[in-house]
Amino acid sequence: MAKSGQMHAFYLGIDTHEEPIVFMRSECDICRAEGFTANTRLQILTGDKNLIATLNIVNPSVLPPNHIGFSDSAWHYLGLKRGQPVRVRHAPLVGSLSSLRKKIYGHELNALEINSIIHDIGRRFYSDIEIASFLTACAGGRLSLAEITALTRAMVNTGNQLHWPGQDRVFDKHCVGGLPGNRTTPIVIAIASTAGLMIPKTSSRAITSPAGTADTMDVLTEVDLTLEQLKRVVTETGACLAAGGKVGLSPTDDLLIRVERALDLDSEGQLVASVLSKKVAAGSNHILIDMPVGPTAKLRDLDQAEKLAELFYGVAAALQLQIRCVITDGTQTIGNGIGPTEEARDVLAVLRNSADAPRDLTERALYLAGQMLSMYSGDSESAALEQAREILYSGQAWQQFRRICGAQGGLKEIVDAHYHSELRAKHAGRLLKMDNRRLAQLAKLAGAPSSTAAGLRLRVKVGDSIVPGQPLATLYADSAGELAYARDYFRQNRDLFEIDIEQ
Amino acid sequence: MAKSGQMHAFYLGIDTHEEPIVFMRSECDICRAEGFTANTRLQILTGDKNLIATLNIVNPSVLPPNHIGFSDSAWHYLGLKRGQPVRVRHAPLVGSLSSLRKKIYGHELNALEINSIIHDIGRRFYSDIEIASFLTACAGGRLSLAEITALTRAMVNTGNQLHWPGQDRVFDKHCVGGLPGNRTTPIVIAIASTAGLMIPKTSSRAITSPAGTADTMDVLTEVDLTLEQLKRVVTETGACLAAGGKVGLSPTDDLLIRVERALDLDSEGQLVASVLSKKVAAGSNHILIDMPVGPTAKLRDLDQAEKLAELFYGVAAALQLQIRCVITDGTQTIGNGIGPTEEARDVLAVLRNSADAPRDLTERALYLAGQMLSMYSGDSESAALEQAREILYSGQAWQQFRRICGAQGGLKEIVDAHYHSELRAKHAGRLLKMDNRRLAQLAKLAGAPSSTAAGLRLRVKVGDSIVPGQPLATLYADSAGELAYARDYFRQNRDLFEIDIEQ
Repeated sequence: MAKSGQMHAFYLGIDTHEEPIVFMRSECDICRAEGFTANTRLQILTGDKNLIATLNIVNPSVLPPNHIGFSDSAWHYLGLKRGQPVRVRHAPLVGSLSSLRKKIYGHELNALEINSIIHDIGRRFYSDIEIASFLTACAGGRLSLAEITALTRAMVNTGNQLHWPGQDRVFDKHCVGGLPGNRTTPIVIAIASTAGLMIPKTSSRAITSPAGTADTMDVLTEVDLTLEQLKRVVTETGACLAAGGKVGLSPTDDLLIRVERALDLDSEGQLVASVLSKKVAAGSNHILIDMPVGPTAKLRDLDQAEKLAELFYGVAAALQLQIRCVITDGTQTIGNGIGPTEEARDVLAVLRNSADAPRDLTERALYLAGQMLSMYSGDSESAALEQAREILYSGQAWQQFRRICGAQGGLKEIVDAHYHSELRAKHAGRLLKMDNRRLAQLAKLAGAPSSTAAGLRLRVKVGDSIVPGQPLATLYADSAGELAYARDYFRQNRDLFEIDIEQ
Repeated sequence: MAKSGQMHAFYLGIDTHEEPIVFMRSECDICRAEGFTANTRLQILTGDKNLIATLNIVNPSVLPPNHIGFSDSAWHYLGLKRGQPVRVRHAPLVGSLSSLRKKIYGHELNALEINSIIHDIGRRFYSDIEIASFLTACAGGRLSLAEITALTRAMVNTGNQLHWPGQDRVFDKHCVGGLPGNRTTPIVIAIASTAGLMIPKTSSRAITSPAGTADTMDVLTEVDLTLEQLKRVVTETGACLAAGGKVGLSPTDDLLIRVERALDLDSEGQLVASVLSKKVAAGSNHILIDMPVGPTAKLRDLDQAEKLAELFYGVAAALQLQIRCVITDGTQTIGNGIGPTEEARDVLAVLRNSADAPRDLTERALYLAGQMLSMYSGDSESAALEQAREILYSGQAWQQFRRICGAQGGLKEIVDAHYHSELRAKHAGRLLKMDNRRLAQLAKLAGAPSSTAAGLRLRVKVGDSIVPGQPLATLYADSAGELAYARDYFRQNRDLFEIDIEQ
């Protein structure tokens, strides 16, 4: 190593998720100087880019001398090439960490302090444990309305922002989540944009669920649009159904959500800031929030839903947004498919008015589209619902959906899974309930969402009479190993289908 | 991969600190099944051992097929051998995480819940972000006295425990910390055990400082004793000066402290539980707590010190311990050496009554030894201080120190650093103050504590008149690169010696 901390970048091919990690040989001078007794943090500089990474030590066999290895996310963030010179130095003090400690000790932060925390997280100056600490300090109702508002603004400001000149009303919808299969968004967007609403919809990919809207749409069309492509699609068709990834709207939110889900934390303040920052950054100002309530959904009871709605309304008022929160039934899965491809099949069946379209998904989508239309027109909810029905049943929604997909790059052919297997009932009885969380887990273990064809198709509904050997669901996977792994889980969790044995 | 999740262990030589990480090829069935969209957790089982690890994905070039790589700490925890078969499965639900969430949401935990959290952390079921979340949720005064007591008991119960039959009073001391060079422990233990006190002293290695007592003692004798060796030394000499590592007293505390220091969190509740659990596990019941107070020490003011003392007294009462908290001057470094070897030189100089023994270290050690002796004898503080002075100045303390070191394996020869360099003043003036934190940082960058000879010897004291070119300190390092790296830091931080320019 040269005196100045000059080293060469080495591609290791280690994916540590988003957290930037660097790998160095134990005998190199920097490692010896920095020590390795605690969480050692180094700043890496190259060109006009830099970040702070955590040091891992490797055997000399892993890395040539004078080279420093990078986790994949750090490699991509810095835009490195093999052998590229980088400068390594002792990490500077990250100023906003003192604001983080202030929050930990129970004090309210001002907008400036919140802004600097979000800015530092965005430029990769925080380790995952620091992000975890920030999220924990903000959870449990410890964020005031002013703090949530500041957090929302800060997240908007760290990313790209869309503007729609000449449009004073731009719409969006969001579902608080927790219900597998509840894939209403593509249907609602198709219906509402047919009626003339502008909806620049971006959706996330799944983080802990078997499919996000972006994963499902990815089965049907191109979703990884650039900001320019997204603008063009919305200008041409009035709407889009894109993935959030490439467009960079509120990107810091993605870094927070990843750690939040890993902690299985549901902080109300973070949730509100996360949702509203994405919408504000997309240029939307009229937002419909779907809140499914049920014992295995994210919102367990009405009380919880009403508290959350109050926060949404408070922050929306401060940001001059029109929002409407609607509470919906979250007691069981919606539709029959779980996983990107299976959910896409349900969406297509509804849009095409097929005979086998799941009724519950149709009705839920119509209800939400009606709510959005009534926000737009000021019509009564029943009149707006009628309008939504007319748009869907007349085939106009399907036509508009194809226009959107056409503008995004065309409709894709659905590809079937390579392997499938029936999950059968062992004994007779009535199906009392299904466990949403374990159904989602089963679909994930079969490979969803990274194998898009993997997942489940439910063959029964709550209340059905079951005979021994009857298929309860079909399991899809792209490899025999994944199918076996998921079947193993089912064998240990047969009671996720709760069947009352009839005497 | 076989259907059952059977794979072979592969030694990668990647040290990720304590957090267990496993590395798998992206195309293996388990990776595909588990997905890699979030913090994926897997349980690894082999023989009667198991842990839960976070999954990182690697390029096929890094790992042969059907093999799973381990971080060094996971490798050692599981006691693996190259190629050893292991079973990999979806991580089970860690029950105590629901108690963690309860705490995050602001509820008090009962002893059972705290016990299960500490138990699960101890058996490597928590990721670092989960530990960070637990520490954050407990910081800022959010632990009640009952919770701190339960936490202390839980940490004692997860490790080894020492008992001293026939001894109703067993002593210990602890310094809350934050002052570089404040190495009183070896001197205090030598003096007090000469007077007949039993002191089974274990100390930690440095986590964020340039030297812990264990690092300093490691320069002088063998410190990595087993539990059996420790018992023998204490039985023979009445005391020991061992490292905490191998003896396994309150080992979960080490896992917590590592993350706490990385977050730069100082949670009072955690601190009290950490200190007292180590002492109770060592079988001590009379404990002296040294609390240095000063603007760059850990305790910034008297208020903070008194609040902490109150917690110590409260928990000690619940655990039936006798403790005494003493507040000492923490405004500047104690002694002249910083780093294991340089601090060891100061300790030896004091014990040998050398002419160049740092007066401040001598006086501080005598004061603390006097406090401990008065706890033992019930004598007045001044009489006990006199007794301490007599023991030190008569050479008895030095004799007892050699007995202890002899029992631990003999006195070692001190080895000089390979490189040194004077840090000189640029201009004349009076030395107003020195920045403790940056002095510590400088010593660390020179290689302390992993290079034991690395560190600093201060050549000036606050109040001294300085002439241009005068050495302020000597910097020691074991390699030219480390010396240069530390000198770089000094050049950018000359103002850590605050010199008032005399007109």
